[in-house]
Amino acid sequence: MANTDKNKRYKKPKPYRVSASKKVNKEKAPFRIIPLGGLKEIGKNCTLIECNDEILIIDCGLAFPEYEMFGIDIVIPDFTYIRDNMEKIKGLIITHGHEDHIGGVPYLLQEVNVPVYASPLAMGMIDHKLEENYLTCDRHVIKAGSKFRIGSFRIEAIQTNHSIADSLAYSIKFPGGHVVHTGDFKIDYSPLDGKVIDLNRLSQLGDEGVDVLLCDSTNVMRKGYTPSEAVVRESIDEIFDNTESRIIIATFASNVHRIKYFIESSMKHNRRIAVSGRSMENVIALSRSLGYMDDLPESVFIDISQIRNVADRNLTIITTGSQGEPMSALTRMAYDNHKSVKLKKNDVVVFSSSPIPGNEKVVSQVVNKLYEKKVEVVLASTMDVHVSGHASSEELKLIHTLIRPRFFMPVHGEYRHLIEHAKLSSRLGQPKNRIFVLGNGDALEVDNRKAQIAKEFTSGEDVMVDGYGIGDVGSVVLKDRKTLSQSGLITVSVALDSVTGALMAEPILNTKGFVYVDEHQDLLREALNIVYNTIGKARSQGKFDEAALNRAIRSDMKTFIYRKTKRNPVIIPAILYV
Amino acid sequence: MANTDKNKRYKKPKPYRVSASKKVNKEKAPFRIIPLGGLKEIGKNCTLIECNDEILIIDCGLAFPEYEMFGIDIVIPDFTYIRDNMEKIKGLIITHGHEDHIGGVPYLLQEVNVPVYASPLAMGMIDHKLEENYLTCDRHVIKAGSKFRIGSFRIEAIQTNHSIADSLAYSIKFPGGHVVHTGDFKIDYSPLDGKVIDLNRLSQLGDEGVDVLLCDSTNVMRKGYTPSEAVVRESIDEIFDNTESRIIIATFASNVHRIKYFIESSMKHNRRIAVSGRSMENVIALSRSLGYMDDLPESVFIDISQIRNVADRNLTIITTGSQGEPMSALTRMAYDNHKSVKLKKNDVVVFSSSPIPGNEKVVSQVVNKLYEKKVEVVLASTMDVHVSGHASSEELKLIHTLIRPRFFMPVHGEYRHLIEHAKLSSRLGQPKNRIFVLGNGDALEVDNRKAQIAKEFTSGEDVMVDGYGIGDVGSVVLKDRKTLSQSGLITVSVALDSVTGALMAEPILNTKGFVYVDEHQDLLREALNIVYNTIGKARSQGKFDEAALNRAIRSDMKTFIYRKTKRNPVIIPAILYV
Repeated sequence: MANTDKNKRYKKPKPYRVSASKKVNKEKAPFRIIPLGGLKEIGKNCTLIECNDEILIIDCGLAFPEYEMFGIDIVIPDFTYIRDNMEKIKGLIITHGHEDHIGGVPYLLQEVNVPVYASPLAMGMIDHKLEENYLTCDRHVIKAGSKFRIGSFRIEAIQTNHSIADSLAYSIKFPGGHVVHTGDFKIDYSPLDGKVIDLNRLSQLGDEGVDVLLCDSTNVMRKGYTPSEAVVRESIDEIFDNTESRIIIATFASNVHRIKYFIESSMKHNRRIAVSGRSMENVIALSRSLGYMDDLPESVFIDISQIRNVADRNLTIITTGSQGEPMSALTRMAYDNHKSVKLKKNDVVVFSSSPIPGNEKVVSQVVNKLYEKKVEVVLASTMDVHVSGHASSEELKLIHTLIRPRFFMPVHGEYRHLIEHAKLSSRLGQPKNRIFVLGNGDALEVDNRKAQIAKEFTSGEDVMVDGYGIGDVGSVVLKDRKTLSQSGLITVSVALDSVTGALMAEPILNTKGFVYVDEHQDLLREALNIVYNTIGKARSQGKFDEAALNRAIRSDMKTFIYRKTKRNPVIIPAILYV
Repeated sequence: MANTDKNKRYKKPKPYRVSASKKVNKEKAPFRIIPLGGLKEIGKNCTLIECNDEILIIDCGLAFPEYEMFGIDIVIPDFTYIRDNMEKIKGLIITHGHEDHIGGVPYLLQEVNVPVYASPLAMGMIDHKLEENYLTCDRHVIKAGSKFRIGSFRIEAIQTNHSIADSLAYSIKFPGGHVVHTGDFKIDYSPLDGKVIDLNRLSQLGDEGVDVLLCDSTNVMRKGYTPSEAVVRESIDEIFDNTESRIIIATFASNVHRIKYFIESSMKHNRRIAVSGRSMENVIALSRSLGYMDDLPESVFIDISQIRNVADRNLTIITTGSQGEPMSALTRMAYDNHKSVKLKKNDVVVFSSSPIPGNEKVVSQVVNKLYEKKVEVVLASTMDVHVSGHASSEELKLIHTLIRPRFFMPVHGEYRHLIEHAKLSSRLGQPKNRIFVLGNGDALEVDNRKAQIAKEFTSGEDVMVDGYGIGDVGSVVLKDRKTLSQSGLITVSVALDSVTGALMAEPILNTKGFVYVDEHQDLLREALNIVYNTIGKARSQGKFDEAALNRAIRSDMKTFIYRKTKRNPVIIPAILYV
């Protein structure tokens, strides 16, 4: 890429819009950026870059079901565009191993056999998913600094900081231009593993010229800087220095470096470590096998079933459940359902986490349960035992200033985050017509002269997974589930003589989720009379065909029940003509 | 009450536990304090004081249904003890007009005809509820400073500050002793109505001797002081000074003084006021009729349907919906469903509120919708447009220090709040054996010598209201509703020959909330075959009685469906013998 005015720019700084616009290269191919997830939402990040006949995928995450997505297990991106352009798909590169960046990979691989490029930890996590789903793929383990080619895409992985080890940003050069995707990141000058985000390289990339910057928006509404992970280290030291009883720490399993620090701190304080919770056990085993936790002797660990053999002051338990998940180890401890851990007075329980939006209520239920056990609870709201993994506004300004892209597209955020990120960019001097806020399924079409949004270029809908069903539960089924949850149902089964319409047996009424049947015998007897009346009326009018009778039963029963109870259960008639 | 050592105490201060314990009066009658709601929860506050043969009730609130209380409208206290002691009930005193303090009144009055004592605003709100329920009661309007007698209870209402006008604490003297209940409060030295909490009177009460203090615990975990309502005034002024477009403010309808300030500020800035949302309209009408908003000319108001006749810079809209309630006026505006208000670019929407725990997610959905309308959104997290109505820890310390009770019982809080409030009291010098953390239904039994907790003295359970049903929905029905919400249901209706067990018609399968039927004809056909098989097998074994066949259909169908879909719909068979 041409970079002729480099020296000149350093002598006399100019607003980057000017320098960037000079980088136009007449021979560049047009290209598209198509977000399939992660825009106007936090979750299921997935972005395509399409140029000539090649498509590169960046991340493929899942989202957890929203409130009122009853019975849905997870949500994944809509792969329609990928399915329709199967032959163009060249590869999938992964920024880091969080579920909202890798959770959709098994579903993607069921559709298209794409080579996957990821850091050792993220790849280890993907491997685990693939094994569970009896899938394999062409795996490429990369590291910060790796440069590699996928089709015509020349890719470079760049060290960033985030709440999981080995988070990467990507520089992607291809015949259409140069795209930088930050992934999820923060700027941590003192991360636990010592690997500071590679600001020098990002600065060089800015010098080389960047056509489009895709940048994490999660914390754009927070002023100032996100504190360093070192802050957590100090709080943890303080807790360990001042505690004689058991210490139980709940955190995100994927925060490998923080967990490693808990372990090191435990060792320093003559504590052995027991691990509880399947995902925590898996990630720690994976991290150890991959060398993220070297120099930890096996003897420091103790099986959770053996903890009674260790004095309280010599024990740390690292556990899942920091989000109040109902089946997690910490929740089981709080509710006295844990096989090996009985909480007792003076145990110190540390939430090294903050509640993900939507989880506030369940977390506080667990906290209240812990108080009932008379344990001491340490929360991020009262002590610095957790810091965010996302850049606040001042950090974002630094990245924008280093990269100086031709075009800017905020990613990874709810709509308000994207808009505020656009405003931040604008305040730094980026012209408004070079900032693009997209939604999932929109495309940003870029050529030498300009960029523009193609609205609803492909489907960017949520695809809901329920059991084996992928995308077969839609809004009608969800609405029915909601209705059922509100007042339950009444079934009315009737056997009629197909010729005369005469009742051939006593109708059967079943209810579920409506009332406690034993206490409402009178109501149900009256309801049965309603059925007799409805059928009698229908017969006398000669209108006992299935559709008409179904309608009549539904309507009469609904009216009766509402008048009596002010409730609206679903009425489900079944008419058998014998 | 004896107060002999008053002068001595002022000369040489002593820890209050000493002075308090000297206040023992040999002739006092034993008494009980029985919380029926509001402990280990935020909501449905209701406390009884029982002495000799008299019971006084303080507040009677409702709680909104918790997560997974499917279909429940509201939750009220269990009135069993009140029902069983009907003849002892002398009166109900109300601390303030919030739903968690008055929402249960109509339900209580259906059980027992008790005289009600409340401030004008709270009484106005209760009147409104009673009218809706065709109820009346013996009403007594009181004010801060009022002294009145209910049976042997000598009661004094004391001015406090809170997020609703005319909040009261109560001093209650009776043959058993002296109880002070703070109600919900904060200490605001510059409240909008100028009525500062009556710290002098509280101090005098402390001098007179208080046996039991019941004190609000909501914000005990917040350090320092809760900011004054004056802070909101400054932010609102700033917004009005700098805005040329429409201003739309969402807040709690009951925050009368704040709403009055919005109106005054609008008038100062030549804006007329439109009100949207039924509860907002009701409360403003009520407040005006009661004189809480005097000196407001009628001409400043404009009907919401007429707002197009006013220039943007001359219009303020005050609306409900600050909690993201689905049917509220602001939510309807955000989703373009409001009859009169179409949001447009540059409208300023102010959330003068913070999300109540559990509402974070729905509020942020509304905020994102507002961003899509390109309005400017002002949140309490970015500007001081809201302050809490509850005392933070330093304010609580002041109250404890003024009151110096013999015994302390934290109220109005989740379990962790009660415990932290107990710790706060203990750190101030209250002996631990004089601090009592109760749950709903427990009783604090107090006599001359000591106080002690009678665990589970009466039922303190949640009573769930669903339509007309009060308490008839229990855990079984709720569990069924949850199960139905997860995977829906399949009904299997079968007509059999009662002698031979032969099928008399094709069985009918209905589903709801399970799958989208049109796309799963194959699955449902296979399921029908399962029914044929099950019945054939039963008949060949001669086991076609109803119970056995029900079991077999449920089991076979469940297995088949799970194997095919990994889902667990409820299976509801109905067998008609003809």
